[in-house]
Amino acid sequence: MELINKLNWRYAVKRMTGAKVPQQKVDNILEAARLSASSAGLQPYKIIVVENEAIKKQLQPAAFNQPQIAESSHLLVFAAYENLTAQHVEDYINLQAAVKKIPAESLADFKKVLLDKIVARDEATNFNWAARQAYIALGTALIAAANEEVDATPMEGFDPAAFDEILGLKDLGVKSVAIMVLGYRDEANDFLAKAPKVRKEMKDLVVNFPR
Amino acid sequence: MELINKLNWRYAVKRMTGAKVPQQKVDNILEAARLSASSAGLQPYKIIVVENEAIKKQLQPAAFNQPQIAESSHLLVFAAYENLTAQHVEDYINLQAAVKKIPAESLADFKKVLLDKIVARDEATNFNWAARQAYIALGTALIAAANEEVDATPMEGFDPAAFDEILGLKDLGVKSVAIMVLGYRDEANDFLAKAPKVRKEMKDLVVNFPR
Repeated sequence: MELINKLNWRYAVKRMTGAKVPQQKVDNILEAARLSASSAGLQPYKIIVVENEAIKKQLQPAAFNQPQIAESSHLLVFAAYENLTAQHVEDYINLQAAVKKIPAESLADFKKVLLDKIVARDEATNFNWAARQAYIALGTALIAAANEEVDATPMEGFDPAAFDEILGLKDLGVKSVAIMVLGYRDEANDFLAKAPKVRKEMKDLVVNFPR
Repeated sequence: MELINKLNWRYAVKRMTGAKVPQQKVDNILEAARLSASSAGLQPYKIIVVENEAIKKQLQPAAFNQPQIAESSHLLVFAAYENLTAQHVEDYINLQAAVKKIPAESLADFKKVLLDKIVARDEATNFNWAARQAYIALGTALIAAANEEVDATPMEGFDPAAFDEILGLKDLGVKSVAIMVLGYRDEANDFLAKAPKVRKEMKDLVVNFPR
């Protein structure tokens, strides 16, 4: 299966060449992320795209100086909503109504469920929930990148507070939860380039029930 | 782009026909999940596969009686490690050593990082972290299903404690965080089958920085 081959081809590239990824490929990766599933369809996150070399260099020390930050073509920051508010729900209901060409009032029951079941929870619960949704988009973007034969490295090894500060994310009501660099592997200098992929055997991941 | 077409084709199917998904397709979806990325490669989750009709019916009331549980071909339960333990790290280092054909001792520095940076955190932090990794696999499985033209609905609307109890997940050291049904859409009875996909516009999801 072609997709499986592409998933075997990809790995978390540690050194990149600095070559630019064509904008059309970046657009396809972002479009895949935009289409990804989320709980109730709420998409409670934003994706910040950094292409500017000076900003990438400014972010690098806040990511343990990992070279692929500066050597990437584009840096994507997945940032989850700090909380889910009544205004988010209002905006989403209006979007639903507009796309489906129905009155927003006809979605009153759905709206009430979102307010009662999600908005009513505490902020920490909603932030963790929003982060999980962002990770679905992260997983989607990783495959979409492999599908475009673009290298993509997801990273949790960074200082979210420092990233949030540099990128002004507080103003957007979001906090960074994961980053992803897009670019091209530097095979000569990446110690992982020739290493075999390490994954659990199927029997250690998948459990058939009843056992 | 073919992948984008497939992502547009997929939606969260609410009614399924009960038709069986061929085992080869299920295997490809699980293989894609197995290959998906995770923090430090630790894959801190399991995927429980339920095909048994009686068990699916037993689980259904714990998922608000949503019909697609019983109408699905296979039900996948994504279950995150309750915590990450020193034994998990030990097993992972041994797996790395075996796959790379190197002595486990040569990975001592990497092992120390995993123990100091992940195992040392509190259980709640590690469970939330493990859940996020499971969501990367969830996102991967969703695309892999679309790629196989198999319908897949991710669901958070279920009672994790009840699922854990019925499936005996405590014995595995994991807790369910999300489920996914695989099957085929029942177009005649699914109110969503003809509905347009609702997603944020690109400008509301993606922020270019500097703005």
